[in-house]
Amino acid sequence: MLDIVIFGGIGDLALRKLLPSLFYLCRDGHLPDQNRILCVSRAKKNRAEFLDIIKEKLIQFLGHDFEEKVWTNFSETLNYLDIDLSGHDDWYKLEQYLSNTPSKDRDVIYYLSVTPSLFTPICAKLKENNLNSEYSRVVVEKPLGEDYQSACAINDVLASCFSEKQIYRIDHYLGKEAVQNILHLRFSNYLMEAVWNKKHIERIDIKVSETVGVEGRGGFFDRTGTLRDMVQNHLMQLLNYIALEPPKTLGADDIRDQKLKVIRDLVPIDIKNVKSSTIRAQYIAGKIGEHEVPGYLQDLKNQPYDVTGTAETFVALKVYIDNERWRGVPFYLKTGKRLDNRHAEITITFKKPENDLYHEPDSNQLTIQIQPALTVSINLLMKKLMGTGAALNRHQNQMDLNSGDEPRMRVPEAYERLLREVIKSDQTYFVRGDEILASWEWIDGIRQAWSEINLEMQQYEAGSEGPSLE
Amino acid sequence: MLDIVIFGGIGDLALRKLLPSLFYLCRDGHLPDQNRILCVSRAKKNRAEFLDIIKEKLIQFLGHDFEEKVWTNFSETLNYLDIDLSGHDDWYKLEQYLSNTPSKDRDVIYYLSVTPSLFTPICAKLKENNLNSEYSRVVVEKPLGEDYQSACAINDVLASCFSEKQIYRIDHYLGKEAVQNILHLRFSNYLMEAVWNKKHIERIDIKVSETVGVEGRGGFFDRTGTLRDMVQNHLMQLLNYIALEPPKTLGADDIRDQKLKVIRDLVPIDIKNVKSSTIRAQYIAGKIGEHEVPGYLQDLKNQPYDVTGTAETFVALKVYIDNERWRGVPFYLKTGKRLDNRHAEITITFKKPENDLYHEPDSNQLTIQIQPALTVSINLLMKKLMGTGAALNRHQNQMDLNSGDEPRMRVPEAYERLLREVIKSDQTYFVRGDEILASWEWIDGIRQAWSEINLEMQQYEAGSEGPSLE
Repeated sequence: MLDIVIFGGIGDLALRKLLPSLFYLCRDGHLPDQNRILCVSRAKKNRAEFLDIIKEKLIQFLGHDFEEKVWTNFSETLNYLDIDLSGHDDWYKLEQYLSNTPSKDRDVIYYLSVTPSLFTPICAKLKENNLNSEYSRVVVEKPLGEDYQSACAINDVLASCFSEKQIYRIDHYLGKEAVQNILHLRFSNYLMEAVWNKKHIERIDIKVSETVGVEGRGGFFDRTGTLRDMVQNHLMQLLNYIALEPPKTLGADDIRDQKLKVIRDLVPIDIKNVKSSTIRAQYIAGKIGEHEVPGYLQDLKNQPYDVTGTAETFVALKVYIDNERWRGVPFYLKTGKRLDNRHAEITITFKKPENDLYHEPDSNQLTIQIQPALTVSINLLMKKLMGTGAALNRHQNQMDLNSGDEPRMRVPEAYERLLREVIKSDQTYFVRGDEILASWEWIDGIRQAWSEINLEMQQYEAGSEGPSLE
Repeated sequence: MLDIVIFGGIGDLALRKLLPSLFYLCRDGHLPDQNRILCVSRAKKNRAEFLDIIKEKLIQFLGHDFEEKVWTNFSETLNYLDIDLSGHDDWYKLEQYLSNTPSKDRDVIYYLSVTPSLFTPICAKLKENNLNSEYSRVVVEKPLGEDYQSACAINDVLASCFSEKQIYRIDHYLGKEAVQNILHLRFSNYLMEAVWNKKHIERIDIKVSETVGVEGRGGFFDRTGTLRDMVQNHLMQLLNYIALEPPKTLGADDIRDQKLKVIRDLVPIDIKNVKSSTIRAQYIAGKIGEHEVPGYLQDLKNQPYDVTGTAETFVALKVYIDNERWRGVPFYLKTGKRLDNRHAEITITFKKPENDLYHEPDSNQLTIQIQPALTVSINLLMKKLMGTGAALNRHQNQMDLNSGDEPRMRVPEAYERLLREVIKSDQTYFVRGDEILASWEWIDGIRQAWSEINLEMQQYEAGSEGPSLE
């Protein structure tokens, strides 16, 4: 018996991601018996109007996967309540709804798909109405603060109502198949475990490139910038998974303890090394494919926001981890908007052979592609057929994660996977409170160093690869 | 300017392998200008009769690859002489033929495609007629002795006429693409070099299985047995390539020095360990696929030879190498006739991960398949899509050697590749005199131990996998 309550229940995220994911989970039998889903929003709507909206959006976003039969079952679980979250008058409706069930101590998942400023009144009201039993969980997602201080404040609000075991902080990168596979790849394959350290690895590149610009998010983005919008969360999660020590068990806290250790071992970037270790940049007008696009400052002008145009849209970092495994191995993190392609991948470059028998200029690499495809590839060198002594072929040895013995299947959306984990009460793929504070602390150091030495804002043409630290 | 002289020039090997290989080399432009090929045999034939035989056999063995245009060019280089090799009278013909050229000090390759007992008169006559100039080379192949003593005798005969630099001992396994690739795979890929030792490898299996029985070779085979017919040469070559230390350079002698060291580091098999380390066996009647086949002893009865039926048709060995790299790692060698399939492959099994996070029963393996396909594959474990914590997919990550950027091409026969190396005067893929003696010495030890403890001859059904040491 489970209630899922989505605050912001007819907002963009709910319609685009959460309800389609729940539809799939319903179809595939992954929702518990007698499950109910409640969407909460300020808008006055009766149930029929609400269902019409949801059905229309599901048809739009699910395409061929929409099935009338599944909708019939799914829609029976859907409910709607209009509540002014910042007010006092409507909360009795939620209390009434939740108590209107035969069982006590039922599981409730509160999904706060709302601006963080509403976390405070929501948590206060849930507590006031005793709706935060030990069987309840709360789901929140980015932005979880914009620096250490504000992240602390959000943690504190959540902690006023829920224990850490009940809090699920989403970074949707942790819902991606390829990211979840990193630990499997590392720890169930001796061949990987044996070489996963400074003795064997030359460098590691983590790259997330987008082709989109700031789109409709100009106001938010210009207050935030790429370092906080992308690096603090997504890229640092990838870094953690690649770098962490073997956890004692696969339990959520054993894994998250190790992630935290990685962040704490990051060499700080401060005024001494910020110039050699970081790039910040903004895109100027250019071409994405054949399509001419304006620069960042022009993009902002077209929007009705009060902006300064000082945010970076691109960041490159050279990061070191000061522990036995990684001391001296550079991790290159790079992400930006309006780059040449939409691509996320991690490349582990191994050292060169100690012998120089084949005078091979290239090194072995392991590449974990996260998007657009889900692949793990290793390149190995082989002899050319009938080749003379040193003639080599580079063989790219690619494995598609979405293959194997079973037939090719739909790759579930990150949200679908993460919602399923929340339902199972498994916190493995969610960010713990101490982890998020540690990452903000490290990121704040970079921002402070940028500000203290007033690091130059470089420019890059839209559609290019962006500037490079090397 | 090159002369290739094939003694036994219209024998089975010449017709099936050597002349077809030379035809391909001619077609592909790999024979030197003004090249001549001379076939020598006792049979009285004129050039036209000789060419008719060759053409007919080429059409038979080359199939679609036979081209009239190439034949026209190729046949111009072909010549025939009838010489009684064990006599004295005909040798002037060879001297005349070879001196009938404008240039002195021309390269001559003598291919002794004859029984070893003829090596002595041939070498004596070549020397007597000063046909063994420093520009000459000699090619010989198995059987190169049947034990240490007889191999010494053959070495001595060859050494009476040629220096070691002029002697090319063929083991046709060394002409196989996949075997030649082993060093490339090991030494140009850091990922391989890094784990290629006892710290990381659990065991190594070298398996060559045949489905054929003794066929027309019953007389020879029953005097020889699988240990001498297959292990002393082919399987030990595979073992050497897998186990050798990085050579100083890719030069023939640097590589062959390292191969020799491997053989010298082999732990002897003697009466103390022969029972636990070896199996010898003979096939009994069974089925290969749907086809009923008789046992070894029945096979021998059908043949007009004076045989005892005491040879083994199957050998399994558990071998250790006593050096820093391999101490304690078992190498399992296994080969036999009338087994379940025709297959040659090397499997490197890595240790299990030190963590037991995924309770994975299997290990990573690298498999080098030599026949029927040319592939190198690595199996890695990956996460199942939407899988729960520990559900894994085993992904077999296979690379086809005969692929890459260029279009799929014909894989040259081992003989073609080896003849090309002889023409280039590159001894890399040929067995050196000291190496062959060392391998016989080690093999003789096993035979002696077998005889001293009178090791049981096991039986296995034709079409089975054969007995196992484990």
